[in-house]
Amino acid sequence: MKPLETRRNVEAAPLIPGGSWSDVAGTRVGVASGRLYGTDRDDVVILDAPGTAAAVVTRSTAVAPPCRWTRERVPGPARAVVINAGNANAATGRQGVRDVRATAERVAAALECEADEVLVCSTGVIGVPLPMDRLLPAVDEAAASLEADGRRAAGAVLTTDLVPKEAACTLDGITVAGFAKGSGMIHPDMATMLGFLVTDAKVEPGALQALLEDVNGRTFNAISVDSDCSTNDTVILQATGRGPEVRPGDAGWTALARALETVTRSLAKAIARDGEGAEHLIHVLVEGTDCDEAARRAARTVAASPLVKTAIHGRDANWGRVVMALGKAGVEGLDALSLDFAGIPVLREGSPVPFDEAAATAAMGAEEVLVHAQLPGPGVGEAWGCDLTDGYVRINADYRS
Amino acid sequence: MKPLETRRNVEAAPLIPGGSWSDVAGTRVGVASGRLYGTDRDDVVILDAPGTAAAVVTRSTAVAPPCRWTRERVPGPARAVVINAGNANAATGRQGVRDVRATAERVAAALECEADEVLVCSTGVIGVPLPMDRLLPAVDEAAASLEADGRRAAGAVLTTDLVPKEAACTLDGITVAGFAKGSGMIHPDMATMLGFLVTDAKVEPGALQALLEDVNGRTFNAISVDSDCSTNDTVILQATGRGPEVRPGDAGWTALARALETVTRSLAKAIARDGEGAEHLIHVLVEGTDCDEAARRAARTVAASPLVKTAIHGRDANWGRVVMALGKAGVEGLDALSLDFAGIPVLREGSPVPFDEAAATAAMGAEEVLVHAQLPGPGVGEAWGCDLTDGYVRINADYRS
Repeated sequence: MKPLETRRNVEAAPLIPGGSWSDVAGTRVGVASGRLYGTDRDDVVILDAPGTAAAVVTRSTAVAPPCRWTRERVPGPARAVVINAGNANAATGRQGVRDVRATAERVAAALECEADEVLVCSTGVIGVPLPMDRLLPAVDEAAASLEADGRRAAGAVLTTDLVPKEAACTLDGITVAGFAKGSGMIHPDMATMLGFLVTDAKVEPGALQALLEDVNGRTFNAISVDSDCSTNDTVILQATGRGPEVRPGDAGWTALARALETVTRSLAKAIARDGEGAEHLIHVLVEGTDCDEAARRAARTVAASPLVKTAIHGRDANWGRVVMALGKAGVEGLDALSLDFAGIPVLREGSPVPFDEAAATAAMGAEEVLVHAQLPGPGVGEAWGCDLTDGYVRINADYRS
Repeated sequence: MKPLETRRNVEAAPLIPGGSWSDVAGTRVGVASGRLYGTDRDDVVILDAPGTAAAVVTRSTAVAPPCRWTRERVPGPARAVVINAGNANAATGRQGVRDVRATAERVAAALECEADEVLVCSTGVIGVPLPMDRLLPAVDEAAASLEADGRRAAGAVLTTDLVPKEAACTLDGITVAGFAKGSGMIHPDMATMLGFLVTDAKVEPGALQALLEDVNGRTFNAISVDSDCSTNDTVILQATGRGPEVRPGDAGWTALARALETVTRSLAKAIARDGEGAEHLIHVLVEGTDCDEAARRAARTVAASPLVKTAIHGRDANWGRVVMALGKAGVEGLDALSLDFAGIPVLREGSPVPFDEAAATAAMGAEEVLVHAQLPGPGVGEAWGCDLTDGYVRINADYRS
């Protein structure tokens, strides 16, 4: 039996090999160590990109003070982003709110701008006040020498991540670049996800925000390492305006949107691939359901299912677990479901198809495993996850100290 | 600092030591082997209890044919339940629907009743047609000798469960008894949950159904082993009417409801305690939020969080993960949260409380770990889960064959 054919192809734009956040005109990067991990590793970053900014932050009601600060200041004019690793500044009471303001004010004093033009991100252990006596001098140091490159910044925010995650793309004279972190922490905590994107396009803040929300829904919001939503998730898109001016409907807008989706999708997949303990990237494609949003939700439920994740870890084509996950997601009409598992047809219109177990096991040895579900209906959605391994349990069961 | 005091105490009724499903007047049990596991272990059960029945089944849209059959026939008069382990009869297309009917008809022929009076449950691997050539003779055998006891039936439905799960309770002359299974399978699949309850009370079917749904929401629907909802979950409550007749509002009704909650709660906790790979029972108590339902939902999100589960596995009082899970659940007003972790105060009204890490680690060595959250608001909700271990990954990554 032939594998399912894909109904709709998303054509990706080409990435720039070795591209980095600092490739965009009008940007500068500062990096320093505040010894937040007790060592001299980089842990404080300033991303200087005078222009406008959009941001999306966690929908958790346990939202951390830095996320609240950022959310209240976008979309709009923005000068810089300050980031620290090693401490999430979450569940820190009123002190945490004061510390965010003090950090933004310190950056503003160094860059000679308003504190309201400085967005703030923190990632690390929850429930411990920020060591401001170490953080503020590091902010001064980072601001004093804005000569680092994007790659050093991408490294400074890493925790249990195994590889830095960067991407850049140029289309029709517009460049979009970014980096992201997400996987876990040295003080293991949650799969806190941060993403930093920048473009040289000149864009009105409201349109920039709408574009970011749209693309974010299909990319970062379509990955899952362990289904636990962070208190500190933040994605920021800065626009320096040094390149072409674009408006929704323009040809330039299409180029910006496509470049942004290419960069963001690449970073989102890189996070899933580098999930804590992961050995496989799981790509779920659902074609069917009423709309793209429902298809995406269903795909993400499959990608996040512990039983699907352990089956792929064990190279077991136990496709019944995919049906279970689609049912859990509330997908209607599963009597007509067709399914391929790692390219092997296993179900056609609701009836099981005999398959060669040995061939399936071999196919699941690939680093990236595709789960492809097809149903009646126009929706198309994708999601990315990783397998659940004893490595994940080990990383997260370790003592914080 | 003193631990939080519980706002509302649920007083449990006493369980009957060694109590079993067959302790209720008017019941008979048949057990046989259909060699559904390829061995002669028991795997087919008939629970004969002429009277009325209520049932709740999975809300998954990938609901299995036996669950649809059962759902369409309750509440109402019922004679018996037939159960097989080793095969879930899910994602089996039209053949699966025909096989359910054939099984019910075979039981009906043996017991001389209507097929519509026979409820059907299956548990095991998904996507493989039932071996009817082996199943139907085993049904005949089980029906021919209805002389087994509840304990043998409780054993026949076990899979990767380590212990049988039974409970019984008598209050004001009314007995409620039951057994349940849930943990995983020998062909590891999903944490399929089945529960079989019976009472001698005489109850009108509609009232019996409403009572079961209410109690089920607070007990079986408050546990999570791995957050994956089964295609085959079913809980059935049979009433033989050999004991007192009760109606909503009666003193007898209160006794029935309390006995049912006691038995169901005991079985639900036993499933969480026996979760795949589990080493700790996690008990989450949320006091606050607008209503009991919201509190219960929040408690279950905490109990199901992989990061909370791995922290407890590692005896790490990483309470920030509980705040994260409450935020993920959408709980409002977390700035006023107070929290105890394994009896250790860690947070009061949103501000972290210093605590002795060594004492916390020692407290988390207990087999049962309590996570107690308090907020403003009248809601009270509980949930039970288990820790996430490398044992869980191992069990579920194994090949089916």
